[in-house]
Amino acid sequence: MDVKALEKVALSVRALSMDAIERAASGHPGLPLGAAEAGALLFGEVLRHDPAAPEWPDRDRFVLSAGHGSMLLYALLHLAGYGGVSLEDIKNFRQPGSPAAGHPEYGLAGGIEATSGPLGQGLAMAVGMAVAESMLAARFNTGGRRIVDHRTWVLAGDGCLQEGVSGEASSLAGHFALGKLTVLYDSNRITIDGGTELAFTEDVGLRYEAYGWQVLRGSMYDFEALAALIEQARSETGKPSLIILESVIGKGAPHKENSAAAHGAPLGAEEVAAARKLLGIPAGEEGDFYAAPEARDYFKARRELWARRREEWEAEFAAWSAENPEGRREWDMFHSLRVQAAEMPVFAAGEKIATRAAGTRVLDALARSNGNLTGGSADLKGPNGVALPAGAGVYGAATPGGRYIHFGVREFAMAALCNGIQLHGGLRAFCATFLVFSDYLRGALRLSALMGQPVIYVFTHDSIYVGEDGPTHQPVEHLAGLRAIPNLRVLRPADAEECAEAWLMALERREGPTALILSRQNLPVFPKPAGWREAMRRGAYTVREPGGEPDLVLAATGSEVSLALEAAALAKGVRVRVLSVPDRGLFEGLSREEREALLPPGLRVVAAEAGSAQGWERWARPEDILSVDRFGESAPAARVAEDLGFTAGALAAMLERG
Amino acid sequence: MDVKALEKVALSVRALSMDAIERAASGHPGLPLGAAEAGALLFGEVLRHDPAAPEWPDRDRFVLSAGHGSMLLYALLHLAGYGGVSLEDIKNFRQPGSPAAGHPEYGLAGGIEATSGPLGQGLAMAVGMAVAESMLAARFNTGGRRIVDHRTWVLAGDGCLQEGVSGEASSLAGHFALGKLTVLYDSNRITIDGGTELAFTEDVGLRYEAYGWQVLRGSMYDFEALAALIEQARSETGKPSLIILESVIGKGAPHKENSAAAHGAPLGAEEVAAARKLLGIPAGEEGDFYAAPEARDYFKARRELWARRREEWEAEFAAWSAENPEGRREWDMFHSLRVQAAEMPVFAAGEKIATRAAGTRVLDALARSNGNLTGGSADLKGPNGVALPAGAGVYGAATPGGRYIHFGVREFAMAALCNGIQLHGGLRAFCATFLVFSDYLRGALRLSALMGQPVIYVFTHDSIYVGEDGPTHQPVEHLAGLRAIPNLRVLRPADAEECAEAWLMALERREGPTALILSRQNLPVFPKPAGWREAMRRGAYTVREPGGEPDLVLAATGSEVSLALEAAALAKGVRVRVLSVPDRGLFEGLSREEREALLPPGLRVVAAEAGSAQGWERWARPEDILSVDRFGESAPAARVAEDLGFTAGALAAMLERG
Repeated sequence: MDVKALEKVALSVRALSMDAIERAASGHPGLPLGAAEAGALLFGEVLRHDPAAPEWPDRDRFVLSAGHGSMLLYALLHLAGYGGVSLEDIKNFRQPGSPAAGHPEYGLAGGIEATSGPLGQGLAMAVGMAVAESMLAARFNTGGRRIVDHRTWVLAGDGCLQEGVSGEASSLAGHFALGKLTVLYDSNRITIDGGTELAFTEDVGLRYEAYGWQVLRGSMYDFEALAALIEQARSETGKPSLIILESVIGKGAPHKENSAAAHGAPLGAEEVAAARKLLGIPAGEEGDFYAAPEARDYFKARRELWARRREEWEAEFAAWSAENPEGRREWDMFHSLRVQAAEMPVFAAGEKIATRAAGTRVLDALARSNGNLTGGSADLKGPNGVALPAGAGVYGAATPGGRYIHFGVREFAMAALCNGIQLHGGLRAFCATFLVFSDYLRGALRLSALMGQPVIYVFTHDSIYVGEDGPTHQPVEHLAGLRAIPNLRVLRPADAEECAEAWLMALERREGPTALILSRQNLPVFPKPAGWREAMRRGAYTVREPGGEPDLVLAATGSEVSLALEAAALAKGVRVRVLSVPDRGLFEGLSREEREALLPPGLRVVAAEAGSAQGWERWARPEDILSVDRFGESAPAARVAEDLGFTAGALAAMLERG
Repeated sequence: MDVKALEKVALSVRALSMDAIERAASGHPGLPLGAAEAGALLFGEVLRHDPAAPEWPDRDRFVLSAGHGSMLLYALLHLAGYGGVSLEDIKNFRQPGSPAAGHPEYGLAGGIEATSGPLGQGLAMAVGMAVAESMLAARFNTGGRRIVDHRTWVLAGDGCLQEGVSGEASSLAGHFALGKLTVLYDSNRITIDGGTELAFTEDVGLRYEAYGWQVLRGSMYDFEALAALIEQARSETGKPSLIILESVIGKGAPHKENSAAAHGAPLGAEEVAAARKLLGIPAGEEGDFYAAPEARDYFKARRELWARRREEWEAEFAAWSAENPEGRREWDMFHSLRVQAAEMPVFAAGEKIATRAAGTRVLDALARSNGNLTGGSADLKGPNGVALPAGAGVYGAATPGGRYIHFGVREFAMAALCNGIQLHGGLRAFCATFLVFSDYLRGALRLSALMGQPVIYVFTHDSIYVGEDGPTHQPVEHLAGLRAIPNLRVLRPADAEECAEAWLMALERREGPTALILSRQNLPVFPKPAGWREAMRRGAYTVREPGGEPDLVLAATGSEVSLALEAAALAKGVRVRVLSVPDRGLFEGLSREEREALLPPGLRVVAAEAGSAQGWERWARPEDILSVDRFGESAPAARVAEDLGFTAGALAAMLERG
């Protein structure tokens, strides 16, 4: 280990970070200055990676959970030689088009393994990455050849460790005995409000011991000792490791270091000048984005080594492929996001089955042919109906080849882990809870959408039809709330057949997450017109045509479609077309021609959905929307429905009212 | 302590719970059967309460955090003599109109201190209650008289302790050294999916020691030992206590106890019969809702004691009132929810000030005259602008009289604690974070709304105008998502004056929470018509009239109002009325007449808001809505706004387009 060179790397990280933040007049210098040593050591000596091949599947993953310190990551990516982050990009930190965005954003450059910034979630996603690694290792490694054998590294701060989601995820990481996961905790004891003594005086190390982690302690600023700690983390194969590094926020800024002033605003020209002097950054123009030649030379040499290592892996992988042609085909399938055809269940017209129960059969079929489908529920496996085929097994420390994940009662970590599994590559992740508890994981769901990760969310018990469990368990506002999230597909199938198609749509989607909104209660399978599957994929289709031209169109989703069919048959003196709208978002995106084929201009539209009216006003007058805009009540489902006007008779009366 | 009687209480809890769940054909017998002893001891011997006066301010609070076990609570309330829960009510468990709802619902009967069921939150609300107790004790107790001196008790299960929110809250409870908070952990090691070994193998006791708690251990089924543990909890005044009680889920149901089968479904007639036999419930009709005479006699005697204790407190309180007339006036004010007039700041027309910064001055003024206003931010005190006047002090273990709460980076616990503070009574709670991180606390915000608690949520950095921090920090879908929550008032003031009025509206509201949506960026104070304050309280008002009859109405909220004023002035050939719509929900509720005065029928409406279009379609055609329906980007705010069409020129062109 070349400590001198690493010192120059750390120096360059500090110089680049200060200058970039200064030029942007915006950013967070505290972490890049305070944790430059950890970054230098990780990127120089620890990570198994190759900047020339940032997609190399067996690379180590590094997640900057404290995403506000993004300049640390960009500086390191640049110095290490990741082509996606040029010096010019760093000069354009936080400017439009630069991959050096305010917070690390997945997809903007190789080496940015996750979008981070919403605190705690980076760490939780890293747990998911480590889960994925262990699953794939169990699946693909052979006795002789370990083609999946990498580690996951996290740099987290005080903020990450205060958030509940990191606690949930860390408990799972201990439970899963993820020995290849290491979290470096930049413990600078400063947050935005001031010192951590204001609100964070627990014994974090002891807490992690309670989770079953190895806990190590040291200083951020001693490379040899730091390397020894990392070696200790490596050698503990049965536990994840937390390395608590005492550090100084904004280290090197003489008047602001060790204070909240260093956290989230440019240091200012004067302080930068003082820091340059203190740190020994060679004379030069201020804002010259100094990178030490020794640092550049060091990484140049490292890149040769890294390329050799990666080539060795390629050779190993080729040998493994030759020995395991079947395994290789599966590997390619796993990594392609292609969906394998399944023997989908068939549902008989008239059969009454909850969409959550239909979902069980559909998931079972899809999981049989798509061996990379993995996931589970936040302790609602039965109620959500998300069992995997028996042979799929349960994932755990002793059974890393298992595919069903018991996440425990931890919705937020569940979703964040799924993001991590999906980001890792090779697997397709799903998770499940009651729709009402999508509130608990909304922060992670947003990141799925923002990162364009096709995680599948199974949300059952989708309305006031939950019944007796009452308003705490009856979603009302959740469909509206989810539909407002950009790039999230929200599918509310109306019966078992639509449920099967919705699962396929979710699995085939590559560019973002899908929420499958499923009923607790039984719903009849209704007859459908020819071509309905293709039509459904455009968001909406006609499920009932009256004799003669329709007088009005009744649009409904999910369980309200069968209610709508009943009401349309009951309504007197009015010819009613019924639309099933499993995806209102796609429906809104139809061309005018397609839309008018479904909703002829000038025709009255009535909408029915057991949830907030919000958004339906685009199609129907407020008085023509049958919705739920108050909290529900604890009573048998049929009674709640009746109290809220969700009966065929009441809906028929609405249709007749004109 | 009469152990025999307590055994009969526990027996009666089991009998009533089994029968109620059986009759409802729905419910969770596992906890009432498994934790009946803890319930009996708490309600019989431990709680300082008086069923005849459930609103007694100095009563102990008990929160059933494992809310699915609601029958435990109803059985105990009934046996203890709380008038709000009759035997008839228990027979109508989970039926419309019964206070014995599926999960405990605040407000349905005295003794139900919080709505619980969404796991982890009950515990977190209890932390808030204990905070409130200590604050009020510091404020009102005099050397000689302790008129505030009660404890907070929680019964929590494995699910509660897995949720991140309970971890966040428990870390705070340790930090605040809440010695009068005790959590009984019903550790039955069974969750819905099966044994806790599936997902929950951490050392919970050690984790709580890390939080700074006293951790005690024992069996659920030994009254003497249990009472000794509770005594130990009482005598540790410097730390909250966690009592881990080994228990058996569904205890007494011979074939289902100690298995997930006992958790969440009726036991079935056969198993109930077997349980009655095993437990020694006297022969009688099944479903006879047996309550042992010894239990009834026991509570009858207890009620006399409790009434005496409460009368002693009343006498003490009267004496204290006589000695402290000023304190008494303040006490009454604190407990009244009445708002005290404040010297509100005045903002000059044309002044440019962010609504978050205006909010700082408003909050300062309101907090000076309303001494019961307490709260803080999730480590964003400065950015959110929620400082309290210097004299208000910082709340903490050594300074329980302080009013500013540093919640740390724990949004969810922050909101749940505020619910607990508000539920406790005597205080008005507010909390703050960035609007985008309202996602993290949405579960608790929903409970504020469901429980009708007027917690004030300050959400700043309210749009893509956040700028450089990028899409992770730029809310897009959040206004729509919040507006869909029933009984939540969402106010987005357009300038400093509206901000002041919005704060007043929030503080004056008694029946539910308010979200104040505030800008990061400066906004000009614009001239307003006479009577605008009253008009604003109806949701919307006219801020610009064109010369002559308007051709169209431009509706905007928050920062888009000043943009709208600019655009209206720029637009050529079109007479534009501009509406400020600080509360779209109230606006939607206007009478037709009021609405048409603002929006004359037939007039084109254009809407502008830097967030999702969802809901604006009620007022404007999709092509007439200037909205943000994609994630933002990292760049200076003005540039992001330009890229998304939020310029006066672009909006003026929309107006002109016709």
